[in-house]
Formats: sequence, C-alpha cells, structure tokens
Amino acid sequence: MCPPQLFELLRQPYFAPESGGAAAGPARAAAPRTLSYTRVVDLSQTLSSATPVFPGFPPARVEPHLSHAQHGVAVERLDMVSHTGTHLDAPYHCSPDGLMVNQMAPEALVVPAIVVDITAKAARDHAAVVTADDLRAWEQAHGRIPAGAAVLMRSGWAARYADAAAFINADASGVLQFPGFGLDAAQWLLAERDVAGLGVDTLSLDHGPATSFAVHMAFLPTQRWGLECLANLDQLPPSGATLFIGAPKIAQGSGGPSRVLALI
Amino acid sequence: MCPPQLFELLRQPYFAPESGGAAAGPARAAAPRTLSYTRVVDLSQTLSSATPVFPGFPPARVEPHLSHAQHGVAVERLDMVSHTGTHLDAPYHCSPDGLMVNQMAPEALVVPAIVVDITAKAARDHAAVVTADDLRAWEQAHGRIPAGAAVLMRSGWAARYADAAAFINADASGVLQFPGFGLDAAQWLLAERDVAGLGVDTLSLDHGPATSFAVHMAFLPTQRWGLECLANLDQLPPSGATLFIGAPKIAQGSGGPSRVLALI
Repeated sequence: MCPPQLFELLRQPYFAPESGGAAAGPARAAAPRTLSYTRVVDLSQTLSSATPVFPGFPPARVEPHLSHAQHGVAVERLDMVSHTGTHLDAPYHCSPDGLMVNQMAPEALVVPAIVVDITAKAARDHAAVVTADDLRAWEQAHGRIPAGAAVLMRSGWAARYADAAAFINADASGVLQFPGFGLDAAQWLLAERDVAGLGVDTLSLDHGPATSFAVHMAFLPTQRWGLECLANLDQLPPSGATLFIGAPKIAQGSGGPSRVLALI
Repeated sequence: MCPPQLFELLRQPYFAPESGGAAAGPARAAAPRTLSYTRVVDLSQTLSSATPVFPGFPPARVEPHLSHAQHGVAVERLDMVSHTGTHLDAPYHCSPDGLMVNQMAPEALVVPAIVVDITAKAARDHAAVVTADDLRAWEQAHGRIPAGAAVLMRSGWAARYADAAAFINADASGVLQFPGFGLDAAQWLLAERDVAGLGVDTLSLDHGPATSFAVHMAFLPTQRWGLECLANLDQLPPSGATLFIGAPKIAQGSGGPSRVLALI
C-alpha cells in the first residue's frame, strides 16, 4: 500500500535538537509549560462492532465476555486491527525505521493543535483535500503554525461516522470518496514548518481516491504521526487547543485505537 | 465475582452538586483551570501477548496482521478482554447502573492524583493493603486529599510486570498474593473524602487474596472508577500530578486498556 521508495528525501527527523522557544514542540525542553483550559472536548468516536474500518480490514468485534446477570461483573471481548476507530498511525506504520507507538516519548502525546476547516469545500467535493494554499490562508488568518503542532483537518465527515457506508463512501466504481490531506500540503509542512502530526475526521490522512497513499508515505516516515477518525473538531478553536493522545502502548505497535482529548 | 448486594448504602453519586472551590473535581465548573508541568510521565505498561491477565481471563493476543515486507505497511491484530494491561475499571464494571466508559464525561479523564507509597510494607507482606490509617498518615504529611482526586497505590509491584507469574504471584495453594486497597480505606474515602478514583500498580484494586472483591463493590458502584496495572508511580510526587486517562471509548464498555499519562 505504501511504496517505501517514495519521498526518501523528506525523511527528516522531527525532534530537531536546535529548536526551542515557548511554542516549541514536545520532548524538547524541561522548561515549565502551562496549560489553561475551561473545557475538555472528546475527539474520539465510540468504538463498537459497527465502527467503520478501511476496506480490507476485518470488522471490529466488541461484545460481552462476562455479564452482570451471569457473572456479577461486565467485561468485554475486543478483537480488531490496530487501525480501527479513532486511532493513531505511528511512524512505524509506513516505515520499518519509524518509531513504534510504544517508543514515542510521553511528551509527544501532549501537543498543541490547529484546526483547518474545509467543510465548505468538502460539502461540494467529497474527495476534497487540504492544500498548501489552505494552510497559507490559515496562517494569514491565525498566525504561524506552531512548532510541534498537530494540524487537524475538519471536513465535517465525522457526522457520517454512525453510518459506516456513508463514512467510507465508495462510489459506483468502488472508489472511496472522502476528504484528506493533499500531498502538496504535507510537503509544504515538512519543508516549511515543524509540525508533529496530522489529523483527520475521515478514515485516512490521504483522501479516499488515493491508491499510493502519498501523504502517509511522505509524512509518517519522518517520525511524524497521524490521527484518523477524529470527532468533534467543530468544537475546537482554530488554534490554542492542547491534545492529549491516549494511544495504547502496544509492543511493536504501528498505532492503535486512541482516546484523544482536547483541552480548550 | 462482585456480589451486588454489598455496600448499597455507600452508593453516593460522585458528582455532588454542592461541591466547589479551586480543588473541586472534574465536570463541576467552567472556571478556567491551569496545569503547570515540566514532564510527562507514562503510567502505562506495554501491551503485548505477554501481558499478565487476571486468572480466568484469556491471554491477550497482539500479533502482526500486515507487515512492511509483505504489504508495505505494518498493522497489528489485537484480541483481548477489556480488562487487560494498564486499564480502567468503569463504574459499570461492577454495577449495571454504573457509568459505562463511553458515558464518562471527558472532564472526568483529567484529574489530580495523589500517590500513597506502601512499598516498604508490601516488600514484607505481598498481600499488604492500603489502610485508612495509611491515608490519614498521608494527609498528615501532605495535606488533605483533594476533591476529585485519583488515589494511587504505589506498592513497587510494577517492577514485576515483565514476569507475569511474579506479577500474578499465586502461592502454593493458588491464592494470589499481591497488594491492593483495603476495604476500610475505600470506605473512609467514600465517607470522609470526595475522590474520583483509585489506582494500583497491581492486577486489582482488591489485594490478591480477595474473593468477594469488596473494594471493587464498595467503590465502583458509586460512579467512581479504578485504574489497574499502573507503571512508574515512583516517578510521581505524593501530590500535584495531573492524570490524563486515555481510556478507550468502548460502546457499553466496562473499561478498557488505557494510556495513562501524568503531568508533573
């Protein structure tokens, strides 16, 4: 799915030792950080047997294992692939040299987030992408994208989550039609800014029609990560939120179903 | 396992509307909160097929589903019960009327934590428990346990995690020998303080020899929660840490494998 020869040139480590400053990314400094917030927003979709999965992946199984009536306690059986529901793509997902989810520094799981709203465009074009122009326009309105940030695409797609067919949105030819990041946006972020991750409210960082997964392959092998199937991005400000990424610490894991919260 | 007739009298809702003040628990006020921290400590154990599970639960399966060599990407298959590894016990675990993990307010997943160190006692007695006296002694040294806090037991047991047999620690008679909370401590917290949850670095809130799971049954049905199999509690101060509980948002879930971080 992700041809490894692509974009070798863009493999730059995220944790650049020369960076610094108040807005610097995680795991860089021991200087005190302060988070002020009034609300915690849940960016996670509910995980169930009805959770939409990428075509080809087995459906998630979430079912009772023990019950109050029979056993005095409730316990569930969970059976799914690691890229199910709201989940993290660790760098290792697309590169054998990438950090596994259990190797990511704890500091890398607490990051500033910005939200790029393409709902208007995505309503017209279901395979719309975030472009480098969209990012430059965002900066015109909201200032420079902070170092260490997660850049989150809000396309409005989260509203379809409860209807797996509408969320996956295969057209009559079987081509998936949902929004994602464009390659030029990923390349611009890699070349011009110093972000930590990308996030989307759809099934994939790449938009639905992608076959070479160019955004995944450009971005993740640089020790950056992705978040997919995010919810409630309409409740976040364009900038100023702090994400808590509750990614499971799976041994040799390429990612995993994650609880993602935003402090705003 | 958890006889529901126990401790009905203690079923008091956690989110008492009359509470308030700067140290009040989560989900109570929209007043700005400020977190200052210099470090993020990972309180999660690594999740793998070798993860120790409570006797009677199936072992976790964490294995490759897709590989870089064959498929160009790595993806894992995860198959386990919801109470595996570092995990949350939601109130629903021990009460059909308890909140499910997907019903817990996002604010309830960001809480102050205190750490009660019983490592000396647990080194002498593997089935040692945190007592109400231990909690009162903690308060003598560190001040009143804040409302809305997680009370975490540090027993030193996390060091055994990599050796499942040593972590579970069944004696020659098959009785489990590991530390936990004593019932008098749970009852004192319920009656005298207003905490949100308990946490342990062992397999269970109740100590190993427990058969009626009295602490679970006293505590969880009051809409409070537990965290089990925590790691790195030796890196936390006695008070002042803030926990982020990355519990999976499992539909009708009694809990789930969680990424737990502490800001200190």
